[in-house]
Amino acid sequence: MDWTLARRAKRLNPSVIREILKLTERPGIVSLAGGLPAAEGFPVEALREATARVLAGQPREALQYAASEGHGPLREQVAADLAARGLRIAASQVLITTGSQQGLDLVGKVLLDPGSEVAVEQPTYLGALQAFASSEPRVVALAGDDDGPRPDAIAAARGARFAYLLPNFQNPSGRCLGAARRDAIVDAALAAGVPIVEDDPYADLWLDAPPPAPLAARAGDAAIYLGSFSKVLAPGLRVGYLVAPKSLYPKLLQAKQAADLHTPGFNQRIVHEVLASGMLPAHLDALRTRYRIHRDAMQAALERHLGVFGTACRWQRPAGGMFFWVELPEGIDAAALLPRAVDAGVAYVPGAAFYAAAPRANTLRLSFATVAPSRIDAGIEALARVLREAWAPAQLPLRRGAVASALH
Amino acid sequence: MDWTLARRAKRLNPSVIREILKLTERPGIVSLAGGLPAAEGFPVEALREATARVLAGQPREALQYAASEGHGPLREQVAADLAARGLRIAASQVLITTGSQQGLDLVGKVLLDPGSEVAVEQPTYLGALQAFASSEPRVVALAGDDDGPRPDAIAAARGARFAYLLPNFQNPSGRCLGAARRDAIVDAALAAGVPIVEDDPYADLWLDAPPPAPLAARAGDAAIYLGSFSKVLAPGLRVGYLVAPKSLYPKLLQAKQAADLHTPGFNQRIVHEVLASGMLPAHLDALRTRYRIHRDAMQAALERHLGVFGTACRWQRPAGGMFFWVELPEGIDAAALLPRAVDAGVAYVPGAAFYAAAPRANTLRLSFATVAPSRIDAGIEALARVLREAWAPAQLPLRRGAVASALH
Repeated sequence: MDWTLARRAKRLNPSVIREILKLTERPGIVSLAGGLPAAEGFPVEALREATARVLAGQPREALQYAASEGHGPLREQVAADLAARGLRIAASQVLITTGSQQGLDLVGKVLLDPGSEVAVEQPTYLGALQAFASSEPRVVALAGDDDGPRPDAIAAARGARFAYLLPNFQNPSGRCLGAARRDAIVDAALAAGVPIVEDDPYADLWLDAPPPAPLAARAGDAAIYLGSFSKVLAPGLRVGYLVAPKSLYPKLLQAKQAADLHTPGFNQRIVHEVLASGMLPAHLDALRTRYRIHRDAMQAALERHLGVFGTACRWQRPAGGMFFWVELPEGIDAAALLPRAVDAGVAYVPGAAFYAAAPRANTLRLSFATVAPSRIDAGIEALARVLREAWAPAQLPLRRGAVASALH
Repeated sequence: MDWTLARRAKRLNPSVIREILKLTERPGIVSLAGGLPAAEGFPVEALREATARVLAGQPREALQYAASEGHGPLREQVAADLAARGLRIAASQVLITTGSQQGLDLVGKVLLDPGSEVAVEQPTYLGALQAFASSEPRVVALAGDDDGPRPDAIAAARGARFAYLLPNFQNPSGRCLGAARRDAIVDAALAAGVPIVEDDPYADLWLDAPPPAPLAARAGDAAIYLGSFSKVLAPGLRVGYLVAPKSLYPKLLQAKQAADLHTPGFNQRIVHEVLASGMLPAHLDALRTRYRIHRDAMQAALERHLGVFGTACRWQRPAGGMFFWVELPEGIDAAALLPRAVDAGVAYVPGAAFYAAAPRANTLRLSFATVAPSRIDAGIEALARVLREAWAPAQLPLRRGAVASALH
């Protein structure tokens, strides 16, 4: 039988990250490639208690078909939690989604036609590029600087269906936008008539200080906001949400109905019970302590092992989230280097996959979330070793003394 | 802010059924409009035990991100269960979906372009029409007779990307295809080069005798098969699956990744544990007994209260599933009648919503799954009352004696 594929199916390609993850899950490899949160940080006991309460109190309601909008008390809770984050919205604007990945799929379905323009950061979240791809848009890259996407780039994106922005501890770059840049971006977007889709799964994973208010707080009805319980509770529940302007909500709701009728009511009630128990603040404190130790271990390892490359290797210590973004010496292709790195015992994600256009081949993403600090050090040491071998020999004489003293 | 909608968003309309359901959930209404399974039939105790086992044995694996394909042991189990149903496939062909509604969304994404043709039964499952709508296909209706869609209609659909077929106890018509018609349909599809998408959520809800083997058993790589645990365990878990030819599987998998990364691993493991406990055969026996009593009560009520209309009202006793499909006297519009029916204390779904084209306005769907037998009788009695009032007075004199004697 000859099946004829839809045109969009030709743009659906295997997730590079997932294919690499498969290769690097063999024992002995220090995988800094993952995008997983730390399983040791899951609140298993609280989830067990919440599950027992749901199955004792309202089992048939939890197990029956349910409203596509989501579980009412959970929507109320999301609205209340967002108010504490500086985003005041009505519970009726909250649509519970099957992870925030589904929010991206719904946004693409409702807002993107083939050929329509969507503006994204460079680099940006790979899963969003994949979700949008099924609508076959024209993806345009927003120019940026060290503070994030530039307001004049947003202004230049006039005509885009929306700008897709991740202000907090972005996956992959770890970058957090400052308050002044947020204001400038929103003002530019409003002036240019470019709506904002704000993706914010890491807001609660700040490690130094809470981030500024979301873009949506200033943008109002010019923004859709996406959130998730995957990083603060557990991704295996697949519970996320989006917040939409009242004018758009009905279309997103209809797309949600068509996509999977509703997010599992059982899972929504478990999340609601966990949050209602009041355990979240203490849980987040513990989670931040855990991630801070990991983050600091990776920062120390990078300084220890990559310092010898001087300014040829660059990174920022992230103030939250799960990732370091490293720029390797110019001329080194992180994708080409990966097989050698895996042979040496370390895996990472080459940065090129995160670019919609003009990828910077000398970048890579490292996750500090799941690997023990002692192994992080071993992994970064292995990375430094293959880097040293790959670095253009022409450049080595300039720095040979430093390399030799650091490595022996 | 002016948000520009995607063209497809204009075709996303509120679910008629869901809007009606909202109106008819007020107390005192006998709602035969629902599409829900009976919550009293959910295996709550078995699910409680399975959940406890998952959270005791493998909590962190169940709560972590997981493979997009689905939980390996569940995929194996699905393959084994399908073999018992006459469909021999490899576990590697099974893709776990967030309810079988998601399977429809993924199939549409991978196989339908704007304007491409998809052939459907008349009537057909409304949720499928909604899922396919986001790809903006041209939906063509397959001519049928009392035995289901006609093989020559399948042959005439040459050029369609696929024919969407529900052979077992179809929602809404309750119709089950016989073995000979199945063979003829598959042979016509193979000869015409029309692939089959077979939707089979009700296979295990047979009430008289197990249905013939699925179409996919004969069609092989010319079919995608969709299944669900919503009707046999509980819909609130949102666990379904599709079985795809090996050539199509990677594209469906990539569409799944982009849609929601994966179906909740927690829920998949609960379903696996429940099935592995061996409780399903006894549970299905009990479920069938429950549904048989309801089905027979509705059949008796229809005979009792609609019999007075003679051949002007027609229905078939369904051999499984959850629905009766009733043809009202010609000239009566079931949608127009609904407000009066609700005033009289009964709700149903007008049949027109289930037609892709040329809807038959004098049809309606009745669910026997959730309403107690005594209330089913009261509901059908109310339906007969409003029908009697609406039936063209011109026709009444012909039958007045029968109506009078039956109703007083």
